[in-house]
Amino acid sequence: MLASSIIAKKRDHEKLSREEIEFILNGFVDGTVPDYQMSALAMAILCRGMDSEEIANLTYCMWKSGISLNRSTDRPRVDKHSTGGLGDKTSLILAPLLACFDLDVPMLSGRGLGITGGTLDKLEAIEGFRCDLNQSEIDRQLRSIGCVITGTTPDITPADRKLYALRDVTGTVPSVALITASILSKKLAESLDALVLDVKFGTGAFMQTYDAAQALSDSLVRTGQQMRQKTFSIMSDMNQPLGRMVGNGCEVNESLDVLRGSGPVPVRELTLQLSAPLMVATGRAETEPQAMVMLSKKLDSGEPLDRFQKMVEYQSGKFVDAIPLATASVLKCPRTGTIENLHGQLIGQAVIELGGGRSKLGDPIDHSVGMEFLVRLGDKVNEGQPWVRIFCNAGRGLAEATALLNRGLTIQGD
Amino acid sequence: MLASSIIAKKRDHEKLSREEIEFILNGFVDGTVPDYQMSALAMAILCRGMDSEEIANLTYCMWKSGISLNRSTDRPRVDKHSTGGLGDKTSLILAPLLACFDLDVPMLSGRGLGITGGTLDKLEAIEGFRCDLNQSEIDRQLRSIGCVITGTTPDITPADRKLYALRDVTGTVPSVALITASILSKKLAESLDALVLDVKFGTGAFMQTYDAAQALSDSLVRTGQQMRQKTFSIMSDMNQPLGRMVGNGCEVNESLDVLRGSGPVPVRELTLQLSAPLMVATGRAETEPQAMVMLSKKLDSGEPLDRFQKMVEYQSGKFVDAIPLATASVLKCPRTGTIENLHGQLIGQAVIELGGGRSKLGDPIDHSVGMEFLVRLGDKVNEGQPWVRIFCNAGRGLAEATALLNRGLTIQGD
Repeated sequence: MLASSIIAKKRDHEKLSREEIEFILNGFVDGTVPDYQMSALAMAILCRGMDSEEIANLTYCMWKSGISLNRSTDRPRVDKHSTGGLGDKTSLILAPLLACFDLDVPMLSGRGLGITGGTLDKLEAIEGFRCDLNQSEIDRQLRSIGCVITGTTPDITPADRKLYALRDVTGTVPSVALITASILSKKLAESLDALVLDVKFGTGAFMQTYDAAQALSDSLVRTGQQMRQKTFSIMSDMNQPLGRMVGNGCEVNESLDVLRGSGPVPVRELTLQLSAPLMVATGRAETEPQAMVMLSKKLDSGEPLDRFQKMVEYQSGKFVDAIPLATASVLKCPRTGTIENLHGQLIGQAVIELGGGRSKLGDPIDHSVGMEFLVRLGDKVNEGQPWVRIFCNAGRGLAEATALLNRGLTIQGD
Repeated sequence: MLASSIIAKKRDHEKLSREEIEFILNGFVDGTVPDYQMSALAMAILCRGMDSEEIANLTYCMWKSGISLNRSTDRPRVDKHSTGGLGDKTSLILAPLLACFDLDVPMLSGRGLGITGGTLDKLEAIEGFRCDLNQSEIDRQLRSIGCVITGTTPDITPADRKLYALRDVTGTVPSVALITASILSKKLAESLDALVLDVKFGTGAFMQTYDAAQALSDSLVRTGQQMRQKTFSIMSDMNQPLGRMVGNGCEVNESLDVLRGSGPVPVRELTLQLSAPLMVATGRAETEPQAMVMLSKKLDSGEPLDRFQKMVEYQSGKFVDAIPLATASVLKCPRTGTIENLHGQLIGQAVIELGGGRSKLGDPIDHSVGMEFLVRLGDKVNEGQPWVRIFCNAGRGLAEATALLNRGLTIQGD
């Protein structure tokens, strides 16, 4: 087999076989297929697309490029993956919540790049929190407390890790085939019984339109099923931040509120909706409405908060009731009217300006910065009313963030 | 400017500016834009296309990535480029023929790769012939005899040289935009007054269909005109080899026959047709029919043969009346009927099997092998009648070539 002939096939709208996909991915990992061939193929896949069999084969080969986690207990294993959005902190709540129902949640997460935050960055707002557990540490923690949130280990889906870095710099990220394989290969390596996907759409999401998100959701569920992985998908609106808080420490604090039984309704609701199908799939509930009631009661019991605290302590973190945040200031509404738009791309960019996100891989992060939104879409506001609180350190990026936030706000007059 | 953003623009069907194209090509030549970004962009250009302004800018920037040849004399400068085909030896005749009309022909040529031969490989069938002249050698030879056929010097279109090697291994050759820029940038660097392009179509050509060849021809002429280069194009049929001879030494011999005023009519005719517009464009003739008569008489005069001999000697070659060929054997028609197909891809592959072509860059070439076709499409043949003579050394590749040739021959029964 020749890599150049395989590229030419995809370029000419032909279908690639599992053997061809395997040849390319193995060669890419061992270095015999150079980056320049892989990036040309990635662009051909993006432009020409892949059918469902090809996507399944790509996912399979990406998964099998590395090892899978052990099944460390007899408990059912479940997880959730989100395509990423502003203020999306449901992972921090869902993992300890489901662990309270004797489910194991071996959540391998990532870091933020661009406007959407990363679960690991959020958890690292907690002093000492380790996200680099090895497989035996993951096993031990699952056996003890049933939940772990950590980074992918180097021997899991190496093809995906290498390809993702390449796609990031070659304009080949937004391909349904490549995104599907990237997401699912990592989740398949967790050896799950059931998986739920949170596919976001809107200005604060990777997929800006509903149709694009729907196409990705369909591809993820279909491919998951082809891999014999019970897979569910929920489409969720990201035309404004989820909850009030955006930024790493801010979001940990809001998650703690929800784990205490309070916190913003949208965060609590989405977490329950994502958890419910996993409860049913693993026999913990008979129907999703029943699961919602059980989950809701559990949240109010305080038990998930205890489990979260245990998880923090197992991962060497120093549990606190609230992460200390940077200096607060507020922006005021420039006119009276109705909140019509809180533009996600601009809000996300504002977080980066404050130092709370990365514009390129490896940028350091200030966990104490972020913002709290005091209004939601559709709210009636008066001129001069505060609409967002900014947490900022020593004025860093404040002018830029303010300009971006004001551009992102649209108030419709009467 | 960011290379990844430029790639993303083309991926998203947007138009690239001259500044963006220049940024990418300069970065590619100096190494700041890595191969993996260039190959992704090449695939995006192939899949999404470029409009005529983009192609013109790409051509211009590729041309300006290096130097151009000096105008060494006051004589008009002309050249021809062919997209390549089986048995296409017109360059060897056209250059000395036009030089006999006080035109300079500074022909920078290439080597063969895949099924079509390269002019330099053919000339190297002549003992001692040098294809690596430097610019002052090119100048001196043009001043003395008005024609030179040699390789591109390293300081001419370095962006094209580097990109061509990358395209070859990343499935990004068949793009009208990239082919146009590659061909024209090199010809623009010859500082010509007029250029003619021989765009081939058919089973023995790079463009297999008439429509694909027409699209390339249109792009080449339009882009040439945008560069203020007088550009003509002729579409020619490559559904059977041009002339009787295929293979390096074989083709030199057939060219010598034509230069002697004999040789196969199709080779002589195509050479005259390609030369005629250059004669008119440079004021050597008033009309193409008049030019055809002048060119035809000149060929019969023997003067172009003398000029060819001088060119060979200037380039250190040992002129001979005929290149010695390998051992001959013939294949016979398996049935009586009419020759319906002589499949170019299979014939070209047969030449490679004999050692007369390259399947990969840098393969050595046996100049004494090749074949002579004893029939043309439409000929009536009898069972047992010889249809092709194979020149082969020590049996190398004979069985494979025989099988390929027999597969490539179709005889329609009565």
